[in-house]
Amino acid sequence: MDRIMMEHGSGGRATSELIGEIFAWEFSNEILNAMEDCAVVLGNKKIAVTTDSFVVEPLEFPGGDIGRLSICGTVNDLLMRGAAPKYITCGFILQEGTEIALLKRIVHSMANTAREAGVSVVAGDTKVVEGSGGMFINTAGVGFVDDGVDISAASSRAGDAVLVSGSLGDHHAAILSSRMEISNSIISDNAPLCEMTERLLKENIAVHAMRDVTRGGLATVLKELAAGSGLLFEIEEEHLPIHPQVRDFCGLLGLDPLYMGNEGKMAVIVDEKDAGRALELIRSSKYGEDAAIIGRVKCAEEQKDSGRLVLKTALGGRRVLDVLEGEGLPRIC
Amino acid sequence: MDRIMMEHGSGGRATSELIGEIFAWEFSNEILNAMEDCAVVLGNKKIAVTTDSFVVEPLEFPGGDIGRLSICGTVNDLLMRGAAPKYITCGFILQEGTEIALLKRIVHSMANTAREAGVSVVAGDTKVVEGSGGMFINTAGVGFVDDGVDISAASSRAGDAVLVSGSLGDHHAAILSSRMEISNSIISDNAPLCEMTERLLKENIAVHAMRDVTRGGLATVLKELAAGSGLLFEIEEEHLPIHPQVRDFCGLLGLDPLYMGNEGKMAVIVDEKDAGRALELIRSSKYGEDAAIIGRVKCAEEQKDSGRLVLKTALGGRRVLDVLEGEGLPRIC
Repeated sequence: MDRIMMEHGSGGRATSELIGEIFAWEFSNEILNAMEDCAVVLGNKKIAVTTDSFVVEPLEFPGGDIGRLSICGTVNDLLMRGAAPKYITCGFILQEGTEIALLKRIVHSMANTAREAGVSVVAGDTKVVEGSGGMFINTAGVGFVDDGVDISAASSRAGDAVLVSGSLGDHHAAILSSRMEISNSIISDNAPLCEMTERLLKENIAVHAMRDVTRGGLATVLKELAAGSGLLFEIEEEHLPIHPQVRDFCGLLGLDPLYMGNEGKMAVIVDEKDAGRALELIRSSKYGEDAAIIGRVKCAEEQKDSGRLVLKTALGGRRVLDVLEGEGLPRIC
Repeated sequence: MDRIMMEHGSGGRATSELIGEIFAWEFSNEILNAMEDCAVVLGNKKIAVTTDSFVVEPLEFPGGDIGRLSICGTVNDLLMRGAAPKYITCGFILQEGTEIALLKRIVHSMANTAREAGVSVVAGDTKVVEGSGGMFINTAGVGFVDDGVDISAASSRAGDAVLVSGSLGDHHAAILSSRMEISNSIISDNAPLCEMTERLLKENIAVHAMRDVTRGGLATVLKELAAGSGLLFEIEEEHLPIHPQVRDFCGLLGLDPLYMGNEGKMAVIVDEKDAGRALELIRSSKYGEDAAIIGRVKCAEEQKDSGRLVLKTALGGRRVLDVLEGEGLPRIC
């Protein structure tokens, strides 16, 4: 058995074998192993639920693959609400012709990433469709939220500091390099952000909002947070962390790192009194070494500033930033 | 805007518009409307989690569509563990060229079915891929399980009655008819089974196992339950409910209704003392009018009978049934 055949999606023996040999093997845990129609797990008073589909091309790229991405994306979405991620479901849509060896590598990478993030894959589903060897993965996630934790876009306040947990555009530039067959040293930042969010909450940092920076880039994320709060967000170009090789790559292709996707970075809005401590905590966490304070949340003194995102450029200009317009890079995650 | 374009998957403005105009509109509820990275909902001590992807072709078929199917499939998976379904996440993978009017119909159908099943869609995601106007939908579901409820394959006991909630093969035959452009009166049975499962639990029927009959058909489901219990399952051909037009259709094409998929039927294993009452409760529930007691669970007196499923044919023969072999009908759900 080298390749996925239509019968792997039949729900019969071939499906069971595929599940048994690849998925159950990699994700093995007591709950999943029961192979029931759904998993029954321990709950809590407040639960967080999210979903994300992954259609990235190529399936494997410098620094990661669709499997690692599919865990990180959903885990990070849960973390952004202050939840502790716990359970993951995964739905595979496999194209006929998918190499089994490739599927195994990807599922193995998912399993490793799930372990790193401290989550269990508790339910799954597999379908097979026509095509030419590609795959899509959906993950949904369940996490638990402690009483008193209330992190959401609307919670930003005037005076808050805006932080980003690391360099911009890495994932986007890695995918693009891979597709254009440009050989360089850029690797995707796809990573679970558990350690830094856990430390921020544990150390009682007054976190008002968190968002992971994915499709649409930092500008889209901050514009959405600004719109959700009705306040003015101001960020400073010279404080934006960008790796030199990504900056060069963007310059060459005329791309704006502010609109390029990451998969292991977050924007955090914290009370100004905690900004320095938050920066230290993130910087000393895994995947946070390049974190920076990049701006402030301000009162919208004029109506037109309400919900606005402004970039103070290195040359002293002011540029109003909107969400990403148009297509961006398709199939980035 | 008539068709899905690659930019609808950008994560930028076009994505927001698509979400705002179609998904948020149809699924509107307080939790989803917050448009956060993930939904935070009320929990419970024991939660049930499941996922299912839907790749059915055609997207609309007699009696249903991929949207209705995507809610029913996941809701029914939760019900089969004795859970009360509560929250749904949905991930859309849309092919470029998908007609917006079609997407609206499908999302509307999802919303109607969610209302019927008493669940809220609390999180979603949209991706766009190349293709020719098709779509895949993943749903994950969260439900709550009351203390003391323990329904699973391993719980079947010798003496138990085997029931099926209605006629076999309807969904499969409807999809096949539609693909072969055969015009007949067969319609899909895609439906949420909430009412019947709720009544069984509320009336304290000793339900030992439940499984919805999907890909692979009743034989695959019962064989899996038999294997899970190590007991002998015996069903009687003459008691299997099959609509005459489905029987004729199967006869014509040489298909076996025991291996054909449904999307609104379940097999239930109940204590023999409750079999009659369970039948009445299912029959008087929505979508259960054709329910029947079709067999028994027995001790495996010989080693070879352990985990075996046997069909007593109308002519008095005995046929050992295995799970579905080979492909079955691809893209049935």
